[in-house]
Amino acid sequence: MSNLHLANKYRFAGVHCGIKDSKKRDLALIVSDVPASAAGVFTQNRVRAAPVRISEKRLPRADARGVIINAGNANACTGEQGMKDAQHMTELTANVVGCETEQIVVCSTGVIGHHLPMSKIESGIPLVKDLLSDTEEGLKHAAQAITTTDTRIKLATRELTLHDTTIRLTGLAKGAAMIGPNMATMLAFVCTDATIKPEDLQTLTRRSAAQSFNCARVEGHTSTNDTLLTFANGQDEPLQAGDLAHFGSSLHDVCEELARAIIADAEGADHLITIDVEGLAEESDAVKVARAVADSALVKTAIFGNDPNWGRIVSAAGYAGVNFDEHHLSLWLGDLLLYHEGTPQPYDEATASAYLKNNREVTLRLRFTLGHASCRMWTSDLTYEYVKLNAEYTT
Amino acid sequence: MSNLHLANKYRFAGVHCGIKDSKKRDLALIVSDVPASAAGVFTQNRVRAAPVRISEKRLPRADARGVIINAGNANACTGEQGMKDAQHMTELTANVVGCETEQIVVCSTGVIGHHLPMSKIESGIPLVKDLLSDTEEGLKHAAQAITTTDTRIKLATRELTLHDTTIRLTGLAKGAAMIGPNMATMLAFVCTDATIKPEDLQTLTRRSAAQSFNCARVEGHTSTNDTLLTFANGQDEPLQAGDLAHFGSSLHDVCEELARAIIADAEGADHLITIDVEGLAEESDAVKVARAVADSALVKTAIFGNDPNWGRIVSAAGYAGVNFDEHHLSLWLGDLLLYHEGTPQPYDEATASAYLKNNREVTLRLRFTLGHASCRMWTSDLTYEYVKLNAEYTT
Repeated sequence: MSNLHLANKYRFAGVHCGIKDSKKRDLALIVSDVPASAAGVFTQNRVRAAPVRISEKRLPRADARGVIINAGNANACTGEQGMKDAQHMTELTANVVGCETEQIVVCSTGVIGHHLPMSKIESGIPLVKDLLSDTEEGLKHAAQAITTTDTRIKLATRELTLHDTTIRLTGLAKGAAMIGPNMATMLAFVCTDATIKPEDLQTLTRRSAAQSFNCARVEGHTSTNDTLLTFANGQDEPLQAGDLAHFGSSLHDVCEELARAIIADAEGADHLITIDVEGLAEESDAVKVARAVADSALVKTAIFGNDPNWGRIVSAAGYAGVNFDEHHLSLWLGDLLLYHEGTPQPYDEATASAYLKNNREVTLRLRFTLGHASCRMWTSDLTYEYVKLNAEYTT
Repeated sequence: MSNLHLANKYRFAGVHCGIKDSKKRDLALIVSDVPASAAGVFTQNRVRAAPVRISEKRLPRADARGVIINAGNANACTGEQGMKDAQHMTELTANVVGCETEQIVVCSTGVIGHHLPMSKIESGIPLVKDLLSDTEEGLKHAAQAITTTDTRIKLATRELTLHDTTIRLTGLAKGAAMIGPNMATMLAFVCTDATIKPEDLQTLTRRSAAQSFNCARVEGHTSTNDTLLTFANGQDEPLQAGDLAHFGSSLHDVCEELARAIIADAEGADHLITIDVEGLAEESDAVKVARAVADSALVKTAIFGNDPNWGRIVSAAGYAGVNFDEHHLSLWLGDLLLYHEGTPQPYDEATASAYLKNNREVTLRLRFTLGHASCRMWTSDLTYEYVKLNAEYTT
């Protein structure tokens, strides 16, 4: 967590305004001191929270100034009042920041189906504005204030040099944790001082999300509130072609690090499982196979039990909806070949079991011989703790 | 279990031949004394066991004589040897029954990736043939011999009268239990003394499977061996039109009863959950929504925890891949309206929780206002016991 790279001309703050029953921070503000390009990727769930509906209309844009985020209440399934409340949050924030309402976006996370406690938020917004800071402390407070059931804050930053100019990316996220009030919500924010046109930022944001957050599956649930927002507040000539690609690669790295941190912090999880699928004709086929394996309760309980159960993995691939024959598929657990072109391999069960027992991060590799498309996905195992946390949570 | 209807001219037996380490029955034979129409529906998994590949080539047919079934070893992922062994099982059975090899089909269930212990099966086949019987005892022995992790046998029978002729349907099944050696396999057999053309039987069998076994989801896994076989050995004029539909309705009833018995016996399950989805434009949309809810670990842990968590159910519907807006959806838990056209309803949490606590069989009803297509699906909840059984099973 040391050596955080803080992008220029951003300030962060997080306070407790009273939405959470605990004394924990529950209201965060991120502000760019100058107008910034801003882009967003939002949940594909048909049930979309009010803040998602407000924010997605305002992005991409060239002159964003910031985002106000509350935790403890998702402002989802709250009808017309919810829309008014989300709108009002952006108005109040614009007032204290000194900009137009449209230049502010909004996110919420927490229980759904309850109206926001607006009087608390109204008192909290001036408070969080007064604490805005361009320090690591400010960033960490913001990262705390967006958490719900996360056990730790999630930060990822990068620094890169393009033509003697140093560019920084500062990312923070909260988990689509396994437990969660009603459901899990993923929120992530990346601020950079690079100069990027809004439409380019939107394209890169969509691509980064597809290869990071959208590849992180806890239980296949998308929420009403999932959001990734990016801001780029540089005031130079916008990045082009190769430079843009270079930046995109760093943006991807930040998003991947945040996505992995979310899975690794999934409460109740014993293993972070990386699923590599390769050798299919289409990327969409690779995604289907990876998703079927990642979502399989039988695979996830086997990994929890340190059981190298190739049969469950092969059969999950078999019902993914992709055409293949058994002899097209080989399977590795870590470096251990379990199944080669349709035939189970003799392997040392003790070695395989020890690999699962001794590593928190484990890899399944499914290799097909049908093409060159591939996909990487992350998930976690299915444990007693998972059931306990999800069954005992009450609304 | 009393008043079983035994279809005419079928004999059943089940013996222990040594495939299971326990002393339990592991080899079953069902024989029709006269040539029977036979039809089958097999797993859609791309990884298909040898007996599936042998049997599906022989069906539908007009002159089937029976099926040989072993439990304890699925003969899946066993390469060319597996194909030879499955073929050999039908040859040996045809020899003792006194018919052509092609008139016999074969099923296996149990661990995958291991070759069948053929010497045990070779000794067992004459043994099981000698015990064939048209009594309830024979039927129950056969039903025991096809089980793996089932805690009880599963039988469903019907009797109906068509134009003064009495027709019987005798069904037996083994579970796609939550636990299972490597994976869960569903096998079911329905024998009737009605007279039905093979192609009609195939059509009815496919339709019954779609509305029963294919609507029963434990964890969304299909196996390498799932099979439903039907036999019709009447020697009269084949049923036509209305009579055929009447028979089809009874076949559906038998299949639904067996499918529900399978879910109800899913080990580790505390609740049998019926999911009714209605009011969509296409049946395929209704199926997508029901499947998303049935497969959601968050929904299933909530039900286990007696938590009327409408948010998880609504959000699962939201990512099912069906276009709708929140105000198109209402949700009932039993008789209790939790969510009405996009708005959470005030309901008594104690009543809702008590409904879950006091009923082993519970119903979720999702009503859309987008059309007239509907779907019913069954699943079970996700419990500590589920994780324990699936994690601790070792190959």
